[in-house]
Amino acid sequence: MKRIGVLTSGGDAPGMNAAIRAVVRKALHEGMEVYGVNYGFAGLVAGDIRKLTRRDVGDMIGRGGTFLYSARYPQFATEEGQLKGIEQLKRFGIEGLVVIGGDGSYRGAYALTKHGYPCVGVPGTIDNDIPGTDYTIGFDTSINTVLEALDRIRDTATSHIRTFVIEVMGRDAGDIALWSGVASGAEQIIIPEKDFDITEVADNIREGREKGKKHSIIVLAEGVMDGQEFAEKLDAIDNFHVRVTVLGHVQRGGSPTARDRVLASQFGAKAVEALKEGRGGVCVGLDREEYVVRDIVETLDNIRHKPNLDLYKLNEEISN
Amino acid sequence: MKRIGVLTSGGDAPGMNAAIRAVVRKALHEGMEVYGVNYGFAGLVAGDIRKLTRRDVGDMIGRGGTFLYSARYPQFATEEGQLKGIEQLKRFGIEGLVVIGGDGSYRGAYALTKHGYPCVGVPGTIDNDIPGTDYTIGFDTSINTVLEALDRIRDTATSHIRTFVIEVMGRDAGDIALWSGVASGAEQIIIPEKDFDITEVADNIREGREKGKKHSIIVLAEGVMDGQEFAEKLDAIDNFHVRVTVLGHVQRGGSPTARDRVLASQFGAKAVEALKEGRGGVCVGLDREEYVVRDIVETLDNIRHKPNLDLYKLNEEISN
Amino acid sequence: MKRIGVLTSGGDAPGMNAAIRAVVRKALHEGMEVYGVNYGFAGLVAGDIRKLTRRDVGDMIGRGGTFLYSARYPQFATEEGQLKGIEQLKRFGIEGLVVIGGDGSYRGAYALTKHGYPCVGVPGTIDNDIPGTDYTIGFDTSINTVLEALDRIRDTATSHIRTFVIEVMGRDAGDIALWSGVASGAEQIIIPEKDFDITEVADNIREGREKGKKHSIIVLAEGVMDGQEFAEKLDAIDNFHVRVTVLGHVQRGGSPTARDRVLASQFGAKAVEALKEGRGGVCVGLDREEYVVRDIVETLDNIRHKPNLDLYKLNEEISN
Amino acid sequence: MKRIGVLTSGGDAPGMNAAIRAVVRKALHEGMEVYGVNYGFAGLVAGDIRKLTRRDVGDMIGRGGTFLYSARYPQFATEEGQLKGIEQLKRFGIEGLVVIGGDGSYRGAYALTKHGYPCVGVPGTIDNDIPGTDYTIGFDTSINTVLEALDRIRDTATSHIRTFVIEVMGRDAGDIALWSGVASGAEQIIIPEKDFDITEVADNIREGREKGKKHSIIVLAEGVMDGQEFAEKLDAIDNFHVRVTVLGHVQRGGSPTARDRVLASQFGAKAVEALKEGRGGVCVGLDREEYVVRDIVETLDNIRHKPNLDLYKLNEEISN
Repeated sequence: MKRIGVLTSGGDAPGMNAAIRAVVRKALHEGMEVYGVNYGFAGLVAGDIRKLTRRDVGDMIGRGGTFLYSARYPQFATEEGQLKGIEQLKRFGIEGLVVIGGDGSYRGAYALTKHGYPCVGVPGTIDNDIPGTDYTIGFDTSINTVLEALDRIRDTATSHIRTFVIEVMGRDAGDIALWSGVASGAEQIIIPEKDFDITEVADNIREGREKGKKHSIIVLAEGVMDGQEFAEKLDAIDNFHVRVTVLGHVQRGGSPTARDRVLASQFGAKAVEALKEGRGGVCVGLDREEYVVRDIVETLDNIRHKPNLDLYKLNEEISN
Repeated sequence: MKRIGVLTSGGDAPGMNAAIRAVVRKALHEGMEVYGVNYGFAGLVAGDIRKLTRRDVGDMIGRGGTFLYSARYPQFATEEGQLKGIEQLKRFGIEGLVVIGGDGSYRGAYALTKHGYPCVGVPGTIDNDIPGTDYTIGFDTSINTVLEALDRIRDTATSHIRTFVIEVMGRDAGDIALWSGVASGAEQIIIPEKDFDITEVADNIREGREKGKKHSIIVLAEGVMDGQEFAEKLDAIDNFHVRVTVLGHVQRGGSPTARDRVLASQFGAKAVEALKEGRGGVCVGLDREEYVVRDIVETLDNIRHKPNLDLYKLNEEISN
Repeated sequence: MKRIGVLTSGGDAPGMNAAIRAVVRKALHEGMEVYGVNYGFAGLVAGDIRKLTRRDVGDMIGRGGTFLYSARYPQFATEEGQLKGIEQLKRFGIEGLVVIGGDGSYRGAYALTKHGYPCVGVPGTIDNDIPGTDYTIGFDTSINTVLEALDRIRDTATSHIRTFVIEVMGRDAGDIALWSGVASGAEQIIIPEKDFDITEVADNIREGREKGKKHSIIVLAEGVMDGQEFAEKLDAIDNFHVRVTVLGHVQRGGSPTARDRVLASQFGAKAVEALKEGRGGVCVGLDREEYVVRDIVETLDNIRHKPNLDLYKLNEEISN
Repeated sequence: MKRIGVLTSGGDAPGMNAAIRAVVRKALHEGMEVYGVNYGFAGLVAGDIRKLTRRDVGDMIGRGGTFLYSARYPQFATEEGQLKGIEQLKRFGIEGLVVIGGDGSYRGAYALTKHGYPCVGVPGTIDNDIPGTDYTIGFDTSINTVLEALDRIRDTATSHIRTFVIEVMGRDAGDIALWSGVASGAEQIIIPEKDFDITEVADNIREGREKGKKHSIIVLAEGVMDGQEFAEKLDAIDNFHVRVTVLGHVQRGGSPTARDRVLASQFGAKAVEALKEGRGGVCVGLDREEYVVRDIVETLDNIRHKPNLDLYKLNEEISN
């Protein structure tokens, strides 16, 4: 393979630029050329493609977001869109594509491969919910961003003896809530993977106050419920005057942590190696500290991302 | 004066601990004893008072919140509460009181002074809206916290070409929105002190997109409107898919910035000097780089905090 | 076991407080009492021991350093010191001890166990060089601290087209240099585990400049050489005007990252579980994403910590 | 004036990019064109000049360093260099120049004005030592960077009961040491503007230990002495085992604080206003919260930057 492409797709995540940089630099190191596709699959279909040089990725390793831009593009689910995309790639002489993104992006990569065009998926999303890897690019940065917010809230919660609900990202996966919750010593963590009883939550707050706890911090994954709604339910049980913070897209930005940059760099290089060997329809992952390359279909079909429920249990034992 | 007290009141602000530390250390340096009152005026009336030593404030300069806790306590507006408070202070032999907080706290301090008990007000609130000082303790930290969030949102806004509304604190004063807005290069800043026209806001977003701007970030002071409501109004005009972040109490916490620590240290020391000279019914402030001590009544009656509207104009000129 | 003790020993590391908190909370959850030993083995021999309650570890999870203090205490290598330590523990009715620290601390823990007193080692050091675990408490925080410094230096290096040497911690292990170097996109990483040729280093700088690179950043592990000495050697080859930064103990401090807090919490809880089962002479570790409990002697004798030389190779491929 | 230029000169400072952005945006707002000169006066003489557009400064407000690069260029002191510079500016039709930098840069700006070419100086340096302004661009960021390092060192200093010397920037001016020292609660601050006695320093450390202080942190301005040398002098008096950190260029980098960005934006806009009015040979400044424009010569000749020695005195009173 002499010329490869790279795009970012879906929600952006800190470390995507570090991954693009690694793809570019590793490919150049292997004697290949690299083209960047702007705006994910939308730009692919539109042919928004340009050559990337060593300098284009200079000083990019520490930047949040993605300099290739991203977009959600449901139309790529159609065969028409996919074939148009392949046509554009061929027009530029690009022989293989690295797709950095979440599981929607993986499906796009898989579709292209099915049409005979080799693609490699790289797990990039803050939610940590992509099958086939223990960690995704952006997750570590995201939990540290949430943690910093939780630390700040703790200051004011302690000063005023208050109850706070912090709504964090995670529609289907509670990983952000779990890790940031344990790391901040949050009193309670509410995630989609675990049922909860709002009256028990209220009981815990009251018990904490009786024990002399100065505050009660509840980390809530957005997939469970809206933060405001949760607060209202709590206040309906007792007059807690619950305060709500909705961090929103703050969680997606920022300069990536050391770990996310290292992970992204390894993933990017690994993806290039796979393409160099002519492999497509695969995705890279970190499996118990080992960098692996796996079949996308098998991964999407057979592997389920599981939250670390040991953390949930641990928090119940040590946070109260 | 041989023995003084100190309390924090109202919403907590980063740097309050640095101010308490300065009060304690300066008083000890002047040969006085210091007592801390927990939970603001509520604790004062309840007699929740304890002696503070040099060690109690060791390693406190960098901590967010207030280790004396704070509380809102409207009951302190009654003469009964005030006399009870003075009784408690006298019971401990405390001859003067430093009150760190916002304008509600100033009114409490003034009331005590009117009853013949010398109090000194120290401006501590993130809102920067206390008359008689250019800056309040906590403001600088707060705008940097908001700025960090805005920088993160910019990453993702740029990656996706999106419009964001960030609701920040400020019921009556737009200072946090103004400073963080200018510092982040926000496209628009909406504050209570300036009328705005939602259709113009929408027009600006569209113009920006036509000019090729990748994002549109709007910083909204909570006093104007709820972030969600603002977003709905915008989306009703055009299909912007506006994203909302409500930072909430995140803005109150965190380790204070260098400037807030220095300001708090100077204010604390200045307050002790005033008490040492037997002055009460005064408040300390920073007036054009000079530390001043002013009459509380005159300050509350005659001085109005004004937002820096030069910043508003500047942002209109350079952010688009 | 009804009563256990905990101490921190050797160089302090961010996350030690989170580990102590987990030990205390988990032990209380299991119905045990916990005593804290101040100043490591020195305090143990001196009997500087006190009961710890739930509240003693409140708001401790985010604090840098160790609130039990630490100390280096070579005298603990003598049997006399060890027996004195056990005597003190017995005097307080403490039946088992958690020792948080580096390999020196492990040896102390092992010595006590050999005398029949059950100890569990918890890996706490920024250097990441303890056998039997993939990561140590403090390492993740430390590499992020170094990374932040490197990002700052990059700003100025780029602005001025300069060569910088940053000396980081790591006497025998290059982990901090490796991870922070890869994460920052440093041009060169010099570690104890890899030979280097100073003339090649100089050649690389010159080649970089010819390629149009704006800066050259070299991360140097202290175990290889002093930063100043390294700079002088480089400047002797060519007139680079190399600038040196020696981060020193800055690398040991700061609020721990999310990952370090989670790791410390898991380790602390795991150590209590081991003691609860009556196990001593063991150490906890993270082995390929799994929390494990291993024999200390076997671990110290048979397992060597190895640097991740894949990272070294990756950096050579993508940083230039 | 229809076309102006802008350059950055001397040591880089966080916020320089924000100032350039303000110059560009304000000038465009006023209907002028803007050209950027790379590498300061060196690039000016060499004619390394290019047109800047709105987009060139997009997303620049938060970046450290200077995207126009900087350089020290002593040759600009010659009339030959100056005339060559003016020739280059005229070649591009540039009618006025904004020079962002320290006092060396001011002298360059003044020299050009003397030759009849209008220049405006903007104070940009972390050292805060430029006459005619209370604060310079970069100072606030720099003291917060130093503060963060000092907070980290305090963690480890407290854990181990140690003495630390931190060497910070400031050849002639002690501002960085003073502000960061007070903000961190450093036990001692050593600056060029105040004599000190090493035996008194040693006495203070010993007294602190006797009082039960867990650590002793000394902030030393580089202009006084080398950190290593200072430590050796201290250790010669008593066996303190002083640890040294030399922060070096870390202090110059990083994303600017809110205050530095606001200051830089105001300064940049003000400089454009001055040129628009046809004024040259002036410099902008912040004088007791007011933005002012002053004659450069008078400023350089008659105004001396003075350190805030009230801070020095305050620290002596409250840090021990």
